[in-house]
Order: sequence, then C-alpha cells, then structure tokens
Amino acid sequence: MTGLGPLFAPRGVAVVGASRDPGKLGAAMARSLSGFGGFLALVNTRDTTMYPSVGAAADAGPVDLALLCVPAAACADVLTEAAAAGVRAAVVCGGGFAEAGGAGIEHQRRLGAAARDSGLRLLGPNTSGFLAPHARLTASFVPGAHLVAPGAVAVVAASGGVNHALAFALTEAGHGVSLAVGLGNAADVTAPDVLDHLADDPRTTAVALHVESVADGPRLVASVRRLTATRPVVALVVGRHDVGAFAASHTGALATSWRTTRAALAQAGAVLVDDERELVDAVGALAVTRARPCADPGVGVVTAQAGPGLLLLDDLRGRGIRVPELTPGTRRSLAGLLPPLTFQRNPVDTGRPGPELGAVLAATGADPGVDVIAGYVLHEPDAVDVVAAVTEGGTAGVPVVLGLAGTGDDVTRDRRALRESGVPVAHDARGVAAATAALLADARARTPRPAVPAPWNAPTVLATRYDEHEGKELLERLGVATMPRHACADRAAAHAAFDSVGAPVAVKLLDAEVLHKTEIGGVHLGVSTHTDLDAALDALDAAGARRYLVEAMAPAGIDLVVGARRDVVFGPLVLVGLGGTVAEALADVAVRLAPLSPGEAAGMPSELAGRALLAGWRGGPVLDPDDLGTIVSRLGDLLAANPLLDEIEVNPLRLTPQGLIALDAVILIRKADDAHTDH
Amino acid sequence: MTGLGPLFAPRGVAVVGASRDPGKLGAAMARSLSGFGGFLALVNTRDTTMYPSVGAAADAGPVDLALLCVPAAACADVLTEAAAAGVRAAVVCGGGFAEAGGAGIEHQRRLGAAARDSGLRLLGPNTSGFLAPHARLTASFVPGAHLVAPGAVAVVAASGGVNHALAFALTEAGHGVSLAVGLGNAADVTAPDVLDHLADDPRTTAVALHVESVADGPRLVASVRRLTATRPVVALVVGRHDVGAFAASHTGALATSWRTTRAALAQAGAVLVDDERELVDAVGALAVTRARPCADPGVGVVTAQAGPGLLLLDDLRGRGIRVPELTPGTRRSLAGLLPPLTFQRNPVDTGRPGPELGAVLAATGADPGVDVIAGYVLHEPDAVDVVAAVTEGGTAGVPVVLGLAGTGDDVTRDRRALRESGVPVAHDARGVAAATAALLADARARTPRPAVPAPWNAPTVLATRYDEHEGKELLERLGVATMPRHACADRAAAHAAFDSVGAPVAVKLLDAEVLHKTEIGGVHLGVSTHTDLDAALDALDAAGARRYLVEAMAPAGIDLVVGARRDVVFGPLVLVGLGGTVAEALADVAVRLAPLSPGEAAGMPSELAGRALLAGWRGGPVLDPDDLGTIVSRLGDLLAANPLLDEIEVNPLRLTPQGLIALDAVILIRKADDAHTDH
Repeated sequence: MTGLGPLFAPRGVAVVGASRDPGKLGAAMARSLSGFGGFLALVNTRDTTMYPSVGAAADAGPVDLALLCVPAAACADVLTEAAAAGVRAAVVCGGGFAEAGGAGIEHQRRLGAAARDSGLRLLGPNTSGFLAPHARLTASFVPGAHLVAPGAVAVVAASGGVNHALAFALTEAGHGVSLAVGLGNAADVTAPDVLDHLADDPRTTAVALHVESVADGPRLVASVRRLTATRPVVALVVGRHDVGAFAASHTGALATSWRTTRAALAQAGAVLVDDERELVDAVGALAVTRARPCADPGVGVVTAQAGPGLLLLDDLRGRGIRVPELTPGTRRSLAGLLPPLTFQRNPVDTGRPGPELGAVLAATGADPGVDVIAGYVLHEPDAVDVVAAVTEGGTAGVPVVLGLAGTGDDVTRDRRALRESGVPVAHDARGVAAATAALLADARARTPRPAVPAPWNAPTVLATRYDEHEGKELLERLGVATMPRHACADRAAAHAAFDSVGAPVAVKLLDAEVLHKTEIGGVHLGVSTHTDLDAALDALDAAGARRYLVEAMAPAGIDLVVGARRDVVFGPLVLVGLGGTVAEALADVAVRLAPLSPGEAAGMPSELAGRALLAGWRGGPVLDPDDLGTIVSRLGDLLAANPLLDEIEVNPLRLTPQGLIALDAVILIRKADDAHTDH
Repeated sequence: MTGLGPLFAPRGVAVVGASRDPGKLGAAMARSLSGFGGFLALVNTRDTTMYPSVGAAADAGPVDLALLCVPAAACADVLTEAAAAGVRAAVVCGGGFAEAGGAGIEHQRRLGAAARDSGLRLLGPNTSGFLAPHARLTASFVPGAHLVAPGAVAVVAASGGVNHALAFALTEAGHGVSLAVGLGNAADVTAPDVLDHLADDPRTTAVALHVESVADGPRLVASVRRLTATRPVVALVVGRHDVGAFAASHTGALATSWRTTRAALAQAGAVLVDDERELVDAVGALAVTRARPCADPGVGVVTAQAGPGLLLLDDLRGRGIRVPELTPGTRRSLAGLLPPLTFQRNPVDTGRPGPELGAVLAATGADPGVDVIAGYVLHEPDAVDVVAAVTEGGTAGVPVVLGLAGTGDDVTRDRRALRESGVPVAHDARGVAAATAALLADARARTPRPAVPAPWNAPTVLATRYDEHEGKELLERLGVATMPRHACADRAAAHAAFDSVGAPVAVKLLDAEVLHKTEIGGVHLGVSTHTDLDAALDALDAAGARRYLVEAMAPAGIDLVVGARRDVVFGPLVLVGLGGTVAEALADVAVRLAPLSPGEAAGMPSELAGRALLAGWRGGPVLDPDDLGTIVSRLGDLLAANPLLDEIEVNPLRLTPQGLIALDAVILIRKADDAHTDH
C-alpha cells in the first residue's frame, strides 16, 4: 500500500462527474475546490467545457487525487480508469454502498477491489470528504467547509458529518484544523491508516479521534500507541447507551463494545472524553501544550473570582482530580503577594485580579505538588494585563490552563495571544476543568510503564473442565489465596473434612458441569455442627450432588469480581468489578486489554464508582492495589498463554483483613477443534 | 420592605466615592455608568468637580440608587445619609465585610441594620453589582460589562463573579440578558427578593439561578414556585463535591446540602443543570419556548447527518430521555417524504438535507408520542433554507430544538433568525441534548400535581422510645407490611413464638436503647430448630438482651432504605435509596421535601442509579411505585404531624414477590424540651 500523501497533499485534483447544475454533487465539489492552489481539472464526458476523461485531465497537469461524483454503480470502473491514468488517490462521497444494503453491498465490494487491485488509495464511500485548510483543499460538498480555519488539530472521524461538525467547532473555538477526515464506509482507508499518516505530519500537534465501531482492534491500538509517542490523541467513542439499531443503519457495522474500545484506546495512550465539547476543549489544549509525564499529577487552582473558582473546584473534584494543599513554603510565598484574608491553601484566591497575578502563578507552579495550574479570571484589562501575567509569569514547565471570561474583540484578541503562547484558554470553568483533565490524562498516559516483575510463567491449562476445587488449585498456582478445603467423594469424607477444617464450614455441590450452584441449592454456608452438615448433605444430594466440597468459611469482607475473557475485536482482556447486584446493575467494572503488567492492573480499582468500599469503608479492610494487580495480570497472562481457555472468572474474590481470598471460580475451556486465533 | 424597582430601574444613580484616579473602584464605576440614559451624579466630598454629598446630588436630579465606593467601615453611615436624602436603593461592591471575618462582621452588621432602619434596599456587600442592559445601566466595575447584550434571560447569582461569567456566556451564545444580579453577602437583598421582582418583569422570559448556600429554605422554595408559574427557572447548585473549606472562606456560610437543595428547587418547579454551559443551553432554550405540560414526554430525533445524530441519541439516552418508536401512521408519512433506505423509526434520518425537512419535522411532530423534536443539521443553504423549513414546517405546538453546525456570518444570521422565531438553537449535539432535556424537565414540572388520595390522618407519636416491635406496630398503622412476630420476655415465650410463626425465624435482641443490633451480635437469621433457637438466645443473652423478638423470615428480595428526617435549612424531608454497601458508598438516594403526595413520592425510585434492580432484575420482583409512594408520603406526613419526631428510617424495606415488607425500623424522638420549630 502506498502512503496517504497523494490523498491529503495532492499536486492536482480532478473532479470526475463535475457539473454545471448547481444542485448536483459534482457542482458542489467543484465550487468547494475553487480555492485550491494546485492543478484543478473538472471532468465530464458530456460537457465540452470540461475534460472528457481523467486521462485527458492527467495529460494537462499532475492529477494525484480524483473526487468521484458519479453514481455508486459506476464508481469502481471510474476508479480503475483513474488509476490507469496515474491517479493515486480517490474520494467517493456518495452513498448507496454497504450502508444501503442490497446492490450497494456489491458496489462497495467492487469499489474496494478496484482500489486494492490498482494500489490507488480510496477514502469513503459514504463520506463528506476531507479538509486540508493549510492547502486550501476543501474536498467536501458542504458549502461552508471552506471557512474552516487552518490550525494544528487533526480530526479523524468515523462519520463525515461528525468530521465537519468538529472542524466547525474547532474553528469557532479558535483552534482550526490541520487536516479533517471523515472515513465513511472505510472500504480502503481506515482510521489507523490516517493515524499513521499523521505521525509524520509536521502541521499536526494533536489529534481528535471519533470512533463508532472498530474492525481491527489490535491495528487501531498499535496506531494510536505509535502516534501518542509524539502527538496527543483525544478520543470520543460513541455508543455508551443503546444506539445499536440506528448505528447499524448508519455504517452497516454493529457498534463495538463502548467500554472495551475506551479501555483499549486509553491503554494505547489516548485521552478519553465524553462529548464533542470536551473533545474540542481537550484537543485544543493539548495542541498547544503538554504536561510532564507524571503518574499521579496534582493541580493548583488559581482564581481571581471566588464564585467561578468554586464551580471550577467542584468540577475538578467530580473528575477525581487531586487539588493538593500547597506546601508551607508556597503558602509563605503567596502570603507575601496577596491580601491576608484570601484563601491560599489551594485553591489560591487572589481576591481582586491585579498585577501580582504572574507572581502568584509562578509561586503556585513552583509547588512540588502542582503539575498543572487551572486558572480563572474575568477579563479586566484595567486591573491586569492577563497575557503578560500568564506568559511572562515563569511557571517553569508547569502548564497553565486559563479560563478567560468576557466578551468583545479585546477578549478574543487576548485569548488568541494566550493560545499562541502555549496557554490553553477556555471560556468558562467547565472548559478549564475539561482541558485540565486532558493534560493530566495525557501526563499519566506518558509515564513510563511500571516495570514488569520477575518473569512469571503462566501454567498451561490441560484439563477440559474444572470443578471448583480444581479451579481453586489453578488459582493457587497463580498465587491467589483460597480457604482450606477438601473435595469429598462421600459423607464420611465430608464429616472428616468438617473436623479437619473446623466449624463453621461451607458445604457445596462439586461438579464441573454445574456453573450456577447457588441457584439450584448447591451452596450451604455457616454449617456449624455435624447434624447441620448431614442436613446440608441431604439437600445437596437432593440437588443431584455426586461429590461435595467442604471448605472453611471465609472472613467477612468486601466482594470483588475479577476475570479474564476474550473480546471478538480486541482479543484477551481482564475485568475488575465489585460484587453484588447493585454493582452489577450499574455495570461498575474496569476493563483492560491483556497481557498487562501488575502495575498497570493495579490502577483498575480506582476507576470503579464504588471504589470507596475498597479504601477502609466503615473501618473495613483496605485493598492493596498491587496484590490485586498481580492477580489480574496473571489471569491475563493465563488467557494469553492458553488459546483454548475462553474465560476465567473469580467471583467472589473477597477483600478481607487477611488480604484477598478467592471464594469461587469458573473456568471455561473451548474444545480444541473450536480453537481460533485471537491475534 | 419596598420593592426592587428603585434598585434595578432607577431614574437616577449616584456614585458615592467617585474618583478621577483610574485605578480606583469609584473611577471604574463611573466609567461603567457613563452610558446610562438616566440622571447620573458623581459624588466626592473632596473633589470640587463633583457633587459634595448625596444630598447635593439629589437636589440636582432624581437619585433612586447610590453605588457606594467607600471603605467598608464608612458604608453604614453613607447609606444612612443617602437614605435621608431620599435614595431608595444602594449597591456595595467592596469586600472587607462578613467574608473577611474580624471587624468585617461588625461592618456588615451595621450596614444591614442601616438598610433595615431606613427601608433602603441594599445589594451586597462583596458583589460586583448588577447589569440591566436594556436601560444601559452597568452597575459593575468589570470593564467589559457594558458589552453584555440585552436579552430575555435574567441571572440571579450567589456570586458577583459567576453573575458576570454567566452574563458574558449568555451574550456570546446569542441570548443576552434582561437583568443580571450578583448577590454577594446578601445583607439585605436575597435571591428570593430578586426572584419575586422578576415575576413581574415583562422583559424576562427565563431565569438562570446560581446557588451556593441557602439561608431560608422555605422562602426560596416559595419564591421559585411562584416564579415558575409564569417563567421557567434553571438552577445550578454548587457543591456536589467537597468544596466546603473554600466555600466557607468565600461567603462566610457553609454550603447547604447539594442534594437537598436540588431536590427542593426541582419540587418548586425549577429545571436543574450540572454546569454553567448546560445552564446557558437550558435557559437560552426556555427563554424562547416551552413544551406543553406532560408527565412523561417523548422526543422525536430528526437528523440530516447520521453521525452527529448518533452522538445526539447517545446523549439523550444517557439523560434517561425517551425516544419512542414512531407510530405506523407517522412512519407511513415519513416514507412518502424520504428515500427508502434511511432510518425512520426514531431517530428520523433524512439522508441528505433537503427541502422536505419542514415536512419531515411536521410529520414527526404530529406523532402522538412526540412532545419535543431534537433536530440536527449541518448548515447547507444550497440544500435547504433551514430557517424556513423549521419555522414554517408547522409542528403545531411541539417545539423544535435545532443543532445547527457551521461557521461564518450566514450561520450566525440563521441561528439568530431561528431564535427570534422561538426555535432554540445549539451549536452541537451536546447542546441540543441539554436544551431538549431542559424543555422536558420544565414540561414535567408543570404537569398538574398528582391528586392527593383520600385524607389520611398521620398518627400522633406518643412514646419517647420505640423498640423494633413497637416501631413495626407504628409502621403497620401507616399501612406498611411486616412479618409475623412476637415480642418475648423470656425463653419460654420465645419457644412458643417459634412454634407460632414457624421455622425458619429471625431472633433479635429487643431493646429501644440499642440502635445497631447487628454490630453487637443481636441478630440471628434462619434459625430453624429449637436447639438452634436456644443457641441464638444464649448469644443474645451474652450480648445483653433482656427481651427477644422472634419473627418469621422474610422472603428474599431487593432491599430498599426509606425514611423521613429534618433538614436544618429546608425542614422535613423524605429519602429513598437502595440497600447494601455499594449503594451506600455511591450515596444512591433520592430526596424530596415533605409533606408530598403519594404520586409525587412514586417518582423517587426512578432517580436511583440502581433503579434497574427494582424493575424485575434477573426475574426478580417488580416495584409498584405507587405502593412505595404511599409509604414514603405517609412517613413524611408522620414527621410533619409530630414535631418531636426527629427521624424515622425503615432499613431495610424489602421488595419481595409479595410486595414491600419492612424488616427493621429506627425511630428517633426528641425530648420535649429540645423541641424547635421547622417552619
């Protein structure tokens, strides 16, 4: 495959199917391209004022890119003809392909095959094109698209509509774009292709990525990981809620798991956002500055107005951002700069804005706990030259995100001057919080990965079925604690086991075929006498038991669920959640692609909504995240090392004062002839 | 007290402490007021180019309002002097009052007393003032404040900084303001005062309310309720997260409970938002249109681009908004308007935008399940005149919220034209979702309150202590089901009770003094033999039991927690939450002020994050919200009828296949001599 240079930076462009009928796509495209500085050829076989063929156009000038404005059924042939004439890239904006079903599926198959056979790179079909404002190249039929301003943010959007919406929003927010691409049906050029192209684009300093569905998970992860080494990527993934039916009608593809896609992109170094506004805030900020890599960064809040500062602090706290108390040294410095009665512990309230703002920012930025400053001021040029204060303040590598509220040309000018000096600017507290959160997420993603501990060899899974006892033996080989227990073939063995482990015990039906023991009365807890044991065994017999498990009762604690399974798009992954129906109803679970190091897995519980339960809730036990990380990492390794192992779930894994203890485990093995590769 | 006309619509204004030193507050105020059309007097005792006193100014022209730019210690005397000269309102912008502590507290006390004694209405101190752009009255020292555009939205903000931030944001979003007020320390004029004033303001069609703390809960609720009868109110309450220390330094007041304040405002008819952006989206939309009152409104989504339409649908679903399938009749109408392969069930995807947009909106709006249309289009004037399509489409009382993406003057002009025609306009999908959510919340709040059922007389609480058995007897008088049980004075009675209610039973320590039985080993569940009963009674004796409760075991189910208690600011309130530690850690609870009707209380469980558990989770029982509403309403009535009853909590109230059953109850009674009023 050739690169995307001919597509996004062509020497010349041909509009095939150009038209003089202003309502037609071919006319709209010709109008959009009228500002292009390179060679432009309009091609129409039946209009004598235009070139009769792509070949004729290519004879007149260099045609690298063809925009095909012809019916869906004709596109494949026209593309082949263009390739023969030396054209190296094409855009098909029209619909009527796979998204329309029926004959459209065949049109798309033929179009994709024509691209592959010729080596020509194809964007689309079913997209509104791309915008390269620095080259005044507007390969889009949307009338206002030529007004999109040049800038440093690249947009890679699944949808042509979203591509334009983001390009307009980035323009209105003062950022502009370096390149904005809508992928549409992605018959040839995919998101990873464009991301790889951007890794070498000197005009692009940050990338906005919009994802609806993912065809090749590992390829996307690899491209994002490569790109984030040099340029921040901010990703918006659609489909948190149930939008499946409409999504399928739109792209012809089912939406990929929202949660898994987000986890995969974050692991690859992308910053995640929840909506297009925060996407614009985040990518606009990261286009002008990045914070230093830091595993657990803190924020200094500096505000000239207490009320908006409160909104900002509330918002930051809601995002789980640390706003640490400043050190005594910093507070002494601030006390020398500010009136005595203002709040100076963090947030730092300057009272009224004044010329000391620069020194306050410098003092706050010098605090060892501050990695990013989130500032807020009303625009009051009489009181302080905010551009000078912020850019000359000398925060020595600690970025300042500034909320600058106001209206009018002076405010617009100062916002622009700040951005050009590397200071992200927002209009409101919400925007400051969103931009700050993006800088922090990017700083965390760029910290060196935790060192992988001494190599651990995942055991080979040989059995085709595991009962609970065997499953726990496997967990023990992973270093997971379990309670003392005995597998018992008969009642006498059960009574001996009862005496051996000591009352009270749990008595369970032991059968690898039974996955949901509790539902059939196969679990009896707190059995404390031989009489009770007989009653429990009677009940297990009635439930069909042939063998029993007698196990010491675990101490009380907080139940977790951890596991590893295979995702059809992304491959092996691990999960950590809280136990119980409420957590289940809320789908309160953290996901990561496997394999991953214990240190990476140790960060998972901090994403849970109910994480307070793991931090000594009501005097209860405190989770050691490294202990959990080791278990989760090894579950992932186990899956990666055993292609026939479909899923392993420890439910519950109980957090007790004595540490984590596995109380039950389910292991699902695929038959060897069902094996498929995940890579 | 006099009204606020002299404050916000004065015939003349005096700046007391006006200055020619451009850095001084008195100079900034004079500059801000230079555009005012009424009588303007600059007063300075030591500057011969100005009036020497307020009295001299008042002799020269009508002075209704004085802006005091003098030191905090002097304000009370100047205010008294102004009142003597006939001035009827004043603004004190400066700080150094209660928020500063120390002598500032006394300054504020004297200032408030001077206002009360004279009848003069005082805004502030410690505020950046107010803006009345229609009168070109900029009573603010912020330099750009005169650029705030006139409009129909009033701002009532706790903080002067937030007042300006919102006024600027409303201007930049194209809405403008009718009046924007920052309350500051609110020594005299409070939020309810301004809200009452706005109820008669013909220029105001919607109100943005920013709340930090509430001094008088019932007064605020009454003012909001009165105002929402004629004008929508959108409220942003600060303090969802821990911002207490900084908040206290800012206003001198502790932040009022975020959750309770939000519940109170919603019950009074306000629309709640989570940040300033959504505040602008919501109040801007409600300033131009309101949906018809409706208890359970539905949304029709119409989009010209599938990608942004997906973002919009995802966002609406995340807000719990219904996007119902359109009726067959509607779909037949749409099929006659649109290409065959577009999605038309709701969302309605028009494929490409075209002149049929108006007819599509009309057909969607005519669907009986559609109360608001959320639309989205890229600005493509070549394809469709969006202003004509939307305003002439004829959606017959069903408001359209339109996302119009694009950039440039044409887009700005069309957005303005749409707003002027009563169509809320957003720039992006997020804004459409926020505005739509606001119209729906307002429509729900305006539905007639559910009819109160046949009068129910709350029993009088006479005992000073309730043990569990007596508490359950009280619950039975409220119509709450309990399990069969016996209070037992000795072992013989316990064994007789065991035989009477039938195994298995729960055996509990019965003592009104012990509030947390479980923690001391005072609860034994699933006791199924007389032998086990004796063992349980032994354990209860060891825990200090003098009496026992023997109770039939309840069926399995989902545990709720319901209760009623008193809030120090708002008075009696009721709570509904899910049981269990995860729900507790998430603080997943719904709150309402009491008394309230059963129908109002029935809506509470739908606010819980874990509400799926109450809707037949995994084949379990389904909650009848009316059953729960009746219980909750009666708990509220009980509290309202019994001033000595501090709190009643039913924990758990279990949802079983047989309905709701109270398993335990705690009732806290205040001693008579501690009684205080809550009203």
